[in-house]
Amino acid sequence: TVAAPAIAQSMPEMRWRLTSGFPKSLDTIYGGAEVFAKQVAEATDGKFQIQVFAAGEIVGMPQAVDSVANGTVEMTHTCSYYYVGKDPTYAIGTALPFGLNARQTNAWLYHGGGNDLLNEFYAKQGLYGMPGGNTGTQMGGWFRKEIKTPADLQGLKMRIAGIAGQVMAKLGAVPQQIPGGDIYPALERGTIDAAEWVGPYDDEKLGFNKVAPFYYYPGFWEGGPSLHFFINKAKWEELPKHYKSIVTSAAGYANIDMLAKYDARNPAALRRLVGGGAQLRPFSQEIMEAAFKAANEVYDEIGSKNADFKKVYESYRAFRGEEYLWFQVAEYAFDNFMIRARARG
Amino acid sequence: TVAAPAIAQSMPEMRWRLTSGFPKSLDTIYGGAEVFAKQVAEATDGKFQIQVFAAGEIVGMPQAVDSVANGTVEMTHTCSYYYVGKDPTYAIGTALPFGLNARQTNAWLYHGGGNDLLNEFYAKQGLYGMPGGNTGTQMGGWFRKEIKTPADLQGLKMRIAGIAGQVMAKLGAVPQQIPGGDIYPALERGTIDAAEWVGPYDDEKLGFNKVAPFYYYPGFWEGGPSLHFFINKAKWEELPKHYKSIVTSAAGYANIDMLAKYDARNPAALRRLVGGGAQLRPFSQEIMEAAFKAANEVYDEIGSKNADFKKVYESYRAFRGEEYLWFQVAEYAFDNFMIRARARG
Repeated sequence: TVAAPAIAQSMPEMRWRLTSGFPKSLDTIYGGAEVFAKQVAEATDGKFQIQVFAAGEIVGMPQAVDSVANGTVEMTHTCSYYYVGKDPTYAIGTALPFGLNARQTNAWLYHGGGNDLLNEFYAKQGLYGMPGGNTGTQMGGWFRKEIKTPADLQGLKMRIAGIAGQVMAKLGAVPQQIPGGDIYPALERGTIDAAEWVGPYDDEKLGFNKVAPFYYYPGFWEGGPSLHFFINKAKWEELPKHYKSIVTSAAGYANIDMLAKYDARNPAALRRLVGGGAQLRPFSQEIMEAAFKAANEVYDEIGSKNADFKKVYESYRAFRGEEYLWFQVAEYAFDNFMIRARARG
Repeated sequence: TVAAPAIAQSMPEMRWRLTSGFPKSLDTIYGGAEVFAKQVAEATDGKFQIQVFAAGEIVGMPQAVDSVANGTVEMTHTCSYYYVGKDPTYAIGTALPFGLNARQTNAWLYHGGGNDLLNEFYAKQGLYGMPGGNTGTQMGGWFRKEIKTPADLQGLKMRIAGIAGQVMAKLGAVPQQIPGGDIYPALERGTIDAAEWVGPYDDEKLGFNKVAPFYYYPGFWEGGPSLHFFINKAKWEELPKHYKSIVTSAAGYANIDMLAKYDARNPAALRRLVGGGAQLRPFSQEIMEAAFKAANEVYDEIGSKNADFKKVYESYRAFRGEEYLWFQVAEYAFDNFMIRARARG
């Protein structure tokens, strides 16, 4: 055969399918995949097309990583921690309770060895992963009644999943797994007592303030949750080197873009929610401390049974200690002053 | 003439020169341009090469934006606020005293209309700009003596530039403009009393802890300073559409990468500095409040004389109020708990 000219080879036509872990209605988080796909298409002059599908359109969210691993679709944009049922190590790719904030998560992933460590694990799952978005610290969710002490959590039926659910269970709550669309009627009827979702901009769409007015913060189980792009490992390795670079840049761009979008959109949503009856409440120090203790017990229990989790968690925990050593100085002092200056008007 | 085949046109060979505003020794901030240029070269299979030069190699930092505007070089990677002498509006592209933190800066630039507003101004300067890095909140710098009240700032000779220098002057200090390499001997001899630089990782290289041990925080004039890529406006407009996209993605990647690198590197540097004699001191509330008042006076004065500044600043200030409304809730409560949990061990 005659070799194709080098210049033609350098821009091969490719079509991939990406299944998002989210419905289109969550436009900021779903939009992360669209931002990514647009950058890749534009950068390749339309040669590398990645078509984005909402969760359930071709693959359901629970099956997404398996579908990527077996090659049904080339990639997904989702939260790693949705797959803790397969292996708890998946949780660390997104967030652990009392873990890193958004900037620290990026620092760990990009320059603290986190992404490489996670990819040792993801490789065993047939995946190649890279960060692709962040929500910032989430809210603690919506409660029908006020929660003042750990005793108030006893028997509380709360929509919360994964390791956060295990922490809540240690405190006596009863974690429930309910799809987003079913939360509102469950709260309204009192089938559940509380539900966590994301933050003001996304929460507003579901209208929880009308049926569970106490809006708690912070979502201590999600201090800076990262989204992930997962690509079928063999497909990733077959990509031309410059397409790998384009994908990597586009994922980084989608990462910074999503957090900027949430940070730009959340304030006005918070104002509207409070105007619509939401009552802001901080979790008490007593509840936070009990949850922190419970979280550490959960990590010890999982780590004693799972070497992958233990290895990645040790890195994550050590990094966290270093980060807060620094963040408590300039960052925290600056934010503290600015918050107080704003309150004075 | 015979038209070149479309596929060849789609990857034109280009060579640009980028003059950095920084010396190579500041490897994180200088490295932002290298990360960017590498992504662009890789994404184009080596067709679009951007050669990076340190400040002074081909163009000095003070001349960089003019050299870009007149086409001597195609682009620069620098701080917009270095050019306040040309027009104070340049300051807002980087940071204003008591302005936005790093995340809020990105939110304003990418999704609060900030980048578009700034580009209306930069276009008049012959430039197209985009964010390209961030240091996070900087430190307040190194002082030979303790500073407890605004009275201690009277007559204090401090190496500090731009609008921050104007704020310090209002408080009675005497701002000095001294290149990085000359700061150490000036502090050692007592020619100056204080100097601000960046944060632990960069400051450590200059060894100020040996001659001015009081290390103040926060650098209230730089809550989340952004780096900028500036491109000659005509050269930007001539770029093929997909090269524009590649440049935009690469700049976003360099932006998130630099902040992650600083966040990963600063903690260990802070430990070493404290081990080497640096004494951490917070600026007192009294000094912060006096500086905040002085900063607002400076903005009113500049805005009354400069319509571009006034227009961009109004957007920036309004955005800041909204951001802290939200950040004081989940983000701040989470960081607050984590800092206290760490301190308890």
